[in-house]
Amino acid sequence: MALVGSAQLEGTSTEEITDVGPGSTVVGLDEKELAVLRRVGGHWGQALGPRRAWTRALPIDPGLHRFPDSLEAGRGRFAPVDFVETGDAGEIEATSHAGAGNSWLGHAASSWRRVVLGAPLAGSAVVHERMRKPVGLAILSSDALSSVAYGPEAMLAVLALAGAGALGLSLWISVAIVVLMIAVGLSYRQLIRAYPHGGGSYVVADKNLGELPALVAAGGLMIDYVLTVAVSVSAGVAAITSAIPGLAQDAVPLGLAAIAILLAGNLRGVRQAGAIFSAPTYAFALAVFALIVVGLADASTRGFAPTEPAAIAPIQGLTLLLVLRAFSSGATAMTGIEAISNAVPAFEPPAPRNARKVLTLMIVLLVSMFVGLVLLMHLNYIVPRSGETALSQLAHRSFGTGPLYAYVQVATALVLLLAANTAFNGFPRLLSFMARNGHAPRLCLRLGDRLAFSNGTIALAVAAGVLFAGFGGRTEALIPLYAVGVFVAFTLSQAGMVVHWWRRRERHWRKSIVLNGVGAVLSGIVFVIAAVTKFSHGAWVALLLIALLVLVAWHIRSHYESVRSAVALYPLEAPASHDPIVPAHLRVADFAAQPMPNAEHDESPDQLQHLTVVPIVRLDLSGLRALAYAASLGQPVLAVHISPDSGEAARFKSDWAAWGDHLPLEVVDSPYRAVVAPLVCYIDALRTQRSELTLTVAMPELIVKHRWHRPLHNGTARRLRRALRRQPGVVITTVPLHLPT
Amino acid sequence: MALVGSAQLEGTSTEEITDVGPGSTVVGLDEKELAVLRRVGGHWGQALGPRRAWTRALPIDPGLHRFPDSLEAGRGRFAPVDFVETGDAGEIEATSHAGAGNSWLGHAASSWRRVVLGAPLAGSAVVHERMRKPVGLAILSSDALSSVAYGPEAMLAVLALAGAGALGLSLWISVAIVVLMIAVGLSYRQLIRAYPHGGGSYVVADKNLGELPALVAAGGLMIDYVLTVAVSVSAGVAAITSAIPGLAQDAVPLGLAAIAILLAGNLRGVRQAGAIFSAPTYAFALAVFALIVVGLADASTRGFAPTEPAAIAPIQGLTLLLVLRAFSSGATAMTGIEAISNAVPAFEPPAPRNARKVLTLMIVLLVSMFVGLVLLMHLNYIVPRSGETALSQLAHRSFGTGPLYAYVQVATALVLLLAANTAFNGFPRLLSFMARNGHAPRLCLRLGDRLAFSNGTIALAVAAGVLFAGFGGRTEALIPLYAVGVFVAFTLSQAGMVVHWWRRRERHWRKSIVLNGVGAVLSGIVFVIAAVTKFSHGAWVALLLIALLVLVAWHIRSHYESVRSAVALYPLEAPASHDPIVPAHLRVADFAAQPMPNAEHDESPDQLQHLTVVPIVRLDLSGLRALAYAASLGQPVLAVHISPDSGEAARFKSDWAAWGDHLPLEVVDSPYRAVVAPLVCYIDALRTQRSELTLTVAMPELIVKHRWHRPLHNGTARRLRRALRRQPGVVITTVPLHLPT
Repeated sequence: MALVGSAQLEGTSTEEITDVGPGSTVVGLDEKELAVLRRVGGHWGQALGPRRAWTRALPIDPGLHRFPDSLEAGRGRFAPVDFVETGDAGEIEATSHAGAGNSWLGHAASSWRRVVLGAPLAGSAVVHERMRKPVGLAILSSDALSSVAYGPEAMLAVLALAGAGALGLSLWISVAIVVLMIAVGLSYRQLIRAYPHGGGSYVVADKNLGELPALVAAGGLMIDYVLTVAVSVSAGVAAITSAIPGLAQDAVPLGLAAIAILLAGNLRGVRQAGAIFSAPTYAFALAVFALIVVGLADASTRGFAPTEPAAIAPIQGLTLLLVLRAFSSGATAMTGIEAISNAVPAFEPPAPRNARKVLTLMIVLLVSMFVGLVLLMHLNYIVPRSGETALSQLAHRSFGTGPLYAYVQVATALVLLLAANTAFNGFPRLLSFMARNGHAPRLCLRLGDRLAFSNGTIALAVAAGVLFAGFGGRTEALIPLYAVGVFVAFTLSQAGMVVHWWRRRERHWRKSIVLNGVGAVLSGIVFVIAAVTKFSHGAWVALLLIALLVLVAWHIRSHYESVRSAVALYPLEAPASHDPIVPAHLRVADFAAQPMPNAEHDESPDQLQHLTVVPIVRLDLSGLRALAYAASLGQPVLAVHISPDSGEAARFKSDWAAWGDHLPLEVVDSPYRAVVAPLVCYIDALRTQRSELTLTVAMPELIVKHRWHRPLHNGTARRLRRALRRQPGVVITTVPLHLPT
Repeated sequence: MALVGSAQLEGTSTEEITDVGPGSTVVGLDEKELAVLRRVGGHWGQALGPRRAWTRALPIDPGLHRFPDSLEAGRGRFAPVDFVETGDAGEIEATSHAGAGNSWLGHAASSWRRVVLGAPLAGSAVVHERMRKPVGLAILSSDALSSVAYGPEAMLAVLALAGAGALGLSLWISVAIVVLMIAVGLSYRQLIRAYPHGGGSYVVADKNLGELPALVAAGGLMIDYVLTVAVSVSAGVAAITSAIPGLAQDAVPLGLAAIAILLAGNLRGVRQAGAIFSAPTYAFALAVFALIVVGLADASTRGFAPTEPAAIAPIQGLTLLLVLRAFSSGATAMTGIEAISNAVPAFEPPAPRNARKVLTLMIVLLVSMFVGLVLLMHLNYIVPRSGETALSQLAHRSFGTGPLYAYVQVATALVLLLAANTAFNGFPRLLSFMARNGHAPRLCLRLGDRLAFSNGTIALAVAAGVLFAGFGGRTEALIPLYAVGVFVAFTLSQAGMVVHWWRRRERHWRKSIVLNGVGAVLSGIVFVIAAVTKFSHGAWVALLLIALLVLVAWHIRSHYESVRSAVALYPLEAPASHDPIVPAHLRVADFAAQPMPNAEHDESPDQLQHLTVVPIVRLDLSGLRALAYAASLGQPVLAVHISPDSGEAARFKSDWAAWGDHLPLEVVDSPYRAVVAPLVCYIDALRTQRSELTLTVAMPELIVKHRWHRPLHNGTARRLRRALRRQPGVVITTVPLHLPT
């Protein structure tokens, strides 16, 4: 299923964008940040001073050089990972097994993953494969060519609303669509020249038009990808149910199964086979041309006179609006036309030249298949009807019900499945481009352990599945949503190209600007027509979703911006003077005078002023170990005991005295028996006294071995941790005591 | 609803058991533990030595003496808590507001709680109120007396299976039940003498018979309490639906609503009103005696001849088994007889004497009401039928449909509701006694903020609700489960008393031993009869539940035992020699030779040997602050970077060098792009090298302000924390950076 896999996936970056690689989830430091880092580092050198040697002396061997054979490592949730030393000194590599659980459940889940997805692949398995022209044509044009399986029928379905007489208009509408196809095709030929490294609408709009148009294009493309899957699968299922009407009730489960297979195939990632994936496209093209030839030959015997029209009662009058609606429905036959320009680097060199040739060839094929089918449908007066696709009707008429008919239907279904699959390549790649600009969750940059962008792939399958099932798997219900997203993306990428040529003024820029300008204007007109004429038929859903996606992406970007500035280092001026511990009463008095410093902005060890708070319930091993842990750090320690009544408080204080009163203790009476709330508020009150303090709350916690023993313990540590998470400047430390049973 | 509230709740402890108070969730240290604690404390004194002054100097004022007015405390999940200084030096008290949320949701939830449950009560609001005899009789006998509302009918329902002719046997069975009532009543009079502080079956069995009988008694009692609620509510609802047949369909929702009201009332805890709760019992007794008088007067006009029997076709033959089944069903009329002996301290002094008087009075009332009703049903040939209770039939016959009839039904329903309420006092108290012995989760010791044992109360309401709804709210379906639990508890407590008298040989011990022995034998016989004759009718459920409860309680006890030994302190012999940091290669070589020490057994600061591991992704403020935090503690620090590929590793290393390479760094390549698993396994490998090390994993974490921003961050810290929880000797420290938006 994952036809070109990472080959296509890896090669489509534009000039400025580096390769999509496993490392890219982490944003590197830029020059300015590095400069600040150097200054802060200088400060550290002074701050650590003589202590540096001490902190560098490790009680263990971090390189695991003398790694024992009898190692007990790997208990817990994960299977053991073997560490091998790589060539570089001190660098080690975590080999296989990583990520597999070693609990019973983890094992089962892991085995299941292996069966469905295959063994994990190391990052070095990313390959950059190149496609020969025939393979590239087949794989990259499957989306566009397969569109003729539903585009003409969608157009006829709208015209049929005005009665059988209106069907004749289909020829004239087709002429307009062919003009559009050629114009957009020429436009994309220009784009290939400008973006030889591949450029999707989002990238082109981002480079030339700015953020908002880029986001609108991205929104359009995302809708487009989701609908490519939903529409292709529904049309493919329709091809099957036309041949086997008994399956018609099971259309939705069939389609969902197809989406699940596509999902699993794409989660496996990395191409499993090459040329075999070009077979469906050629088989489909062959089937369509055979249909056209046989049909035309048949019609020539009748002197090309249309057969008598089936009687369809007009439901509404033939208005301009209806004609335009039919036009925008028919225009769905050109969806997928942009695939080649997105994937230029996947071709053999000279890639741009080969890509242009393949694009031209694809336009020729698309136009002739589209025109031939529309003509044939007109001559045979094919009327869309539920239960059988127009293509199936044509095939029945030409080939009866024999093996030739079956061949046409199977080829149609396969090419549509292949077309749906192209969306599975494009969608996660789009998300990863967006994530790189901060417009999508950074998670979308993460390659799964089979090197696929797992999160984006799953998101697409879920969205397409929901849409497909929500619309009952009916192609005609999905079509109105389709054209809007496609043409908004076409328009913005062509408009971006106009700006591109205008800025660059390279060779032939005038010709290119005209071609792209025409493409942009025509696409824009189709977008407006589609949005207006189909607004109430579903286009509003697409428009709303685009707006929503733009808003969400914008919000994500602004969140990442604020994170970026929040985690930026401050250039330190000079080492802060070592602050002696001042008696509390002096400190507290003047805290209001100073501005509130933020302990979380400390970035050098000498800036941190510690206070460790140990909430203690009972002086047993668990509690005493937490105290010992805190005291051994050599920083001020305050133990806090929350007591439900004064009797308990007195008892605890006497235990504390018996122990020797080695640390300051504060007992807080909580007559309402709450523990967490008074503790949190007490810690907050301490923090307010001196906000520059780094308060470490070191809490003892009993860790039970079995989950079902949890209700036997009060879980105060868990609740306290959750409540303290929101307190600024509070470091949360859990000092665990693991129970043997 | 919460009739005697904490007054009854507080006063029923036995001699050895101290008061049930708010402080009791924490188990104090015993003498042996205190001795060890003193030794460990001495060790601390030597270990801290000169550092003691340093760790005692706090940079803040822990007593909050100079608490600023403009305090910003209380942000986060909790409303601000005011701290006031109590008389004692340095002790502060958290006043109101504790526990209320200050988020929108928290506020709403809190307000709702206040409306339903009332304002929280301080522990000092626990009062020890005493009941006068008339009030005590009414409140404590409601359970027993109300049983006559369903007991006789349950007996007749079984006999009716053998046809109308068998109903006459009810008189003879009643004689046996009356004998039983008197014997058990006399038995409990002895118990009051022996346990003047109140003693439930669990306590008596625990003191005299050992753990297993105590747990069996506890299991029986728990079933008993749950069924008291379920049966009383179903019988109460039946009293209502008998009067208003239109409500019959809504019996289940009605009953669940009643249980919900009882739950809310009991969560409020602490008595809200006193004498008013004795009204239903007297009203019911009055109603029954009025019925009996009118009925007997009526019958006397007929010369005490039974009316003509209704024609009931026998479904099965009149076997001994059926008679015994009828007997055990009728014996449910004496459930609740033990309530007074459980609550002796709730009486005015001399409490035992008053309690015995009240018990005698109750037995007299119970016997006469029971005998009167059975006789009346016999004379009027009342036949149980669905849709109307036997009591309602009697009332209809004597009082027609006027206000007197309504009075009987309302009084019946109210007394049954009151009886259900007694279980709400007993069940959580039983759980708290069990929790004190480690037989129930320690949570059951916790008083809610209204001083009720909230957890036990909720558990009872849920269990009773499930049982009630599961059996469709039909009293006759619940009866077979009832007798088993009651009589196993009766048997064990009386048997325990026999052992008690035998051991003590106090005054009158021979008489007491005979009375309790007879009680034990008779109760035991009834238990066997109930278990055998009703086994297939539902008693097996009760027996299975008792066995299950015994097993669970046993398991809980053994868990707490193992926890207790796990958290016990080790007496330290002498201060461990200060261990200089040994170069890694020396350390690692000999680790296999030593026994594996356990870092979690360190209980003095000088025993801890630290290594802080800082997982670092990027040298930004968040990462650098974690490093600064770790370095400022003056212990060895190792930074670990997990890198998905070697390019990223190189880039990170160059950033690290730019910063100044102030700390040891280990870069682990993870070609499969997993982060958490290799890190956990690496830390485990370090720990295996020297298991006596306390490894602190200090992880930087970005804390987002809004939950919906979470998917935008990878949550590695969260997943790492979860995975590291199970690693022994690993202290988990979260160094947070709170994002401003």
